Amino acid sequence: MTTVMLDKTFAALADPTRRAILGRLAEGEASVTELAEPFEMTLPAVSKHLKVLERAGLITRTRRAQWRPCQLEPAPLKEASDWLEEYRRLWEERLDRLDEYLRELQGKEQADEQRQS
Amino acid sequence: MTTVMLDKTFAALADPTRRAILGRLAEGEASVTELAEPFEMTLPAVSKHLKVLERAGLITRTRRAQWRPCQLEPAPLKEASDWLEEYRRLWEERLDRLDEYLRELQGKEQADEQRQS
Repeated sequence: MTTVMLDKTFAALADPTRRAILGRLAEGEASVTELAEPFEMTLPAVSKHLKVLERAGLITRTRRAQWRPCQLEPAPLKEASDWLEEYRRLWEERLDRLDEYLRELQGKEQADEQRQS
Repeated sequence: MTTVMLDKTFAALADPTRRAILGRLAEGEASVTELAEPFEMTLPAVSKHLKVLERAGLITRTRRAQWRPCQLEPAPLKEASDWLEEYRRLWEERLDRLDEYLRELQGKEQADEQRQS
């Protein structure tokens, strides 16, 4: 994935409505009208979000007889996840240090309690 | 993590310079001047990017005697990764189907070759 695609993917994900649309499409394809329902948004407003998702390659729309259902395309999500994965070591180290610190605190508390009793 | 924080994290990641800054900080803390060097950018331009990263909670800046080094804060990256993780099943299924299709194609090709020989 080019860095430009990663820009578009992250920008597309930076909006709660667009993330909710992807969440809905993860359950199966849906029409624009179906996607608009839970958001109390106008169809043009939803269409705007769909265009951002489409340009980022996160959804596709196929033409079928009477409707054009939207489908989720998960490949860019994998690329974004792969990018983040490089940082896993860092957040795990941070959590380990926090764990260690909490255990130290607990140890001190128990020592204090024993002294007091 | 609130949805607002996730908005800020993804928006902050939607820029190649900001992702490169995080990449540099993953190796250790750095000053603004050190961060600016590889980008041929003015210090104010880099500072602007740092502010976006700081507001997203992705970096912190501590004051020390003569300088204010920037540190990476990996927690929001973990949250973004956790959000994406929900979609892993979808991209793995897609890759499995692609695999299956390629194996089918190969099977057909081999059958064709055997018929021709």
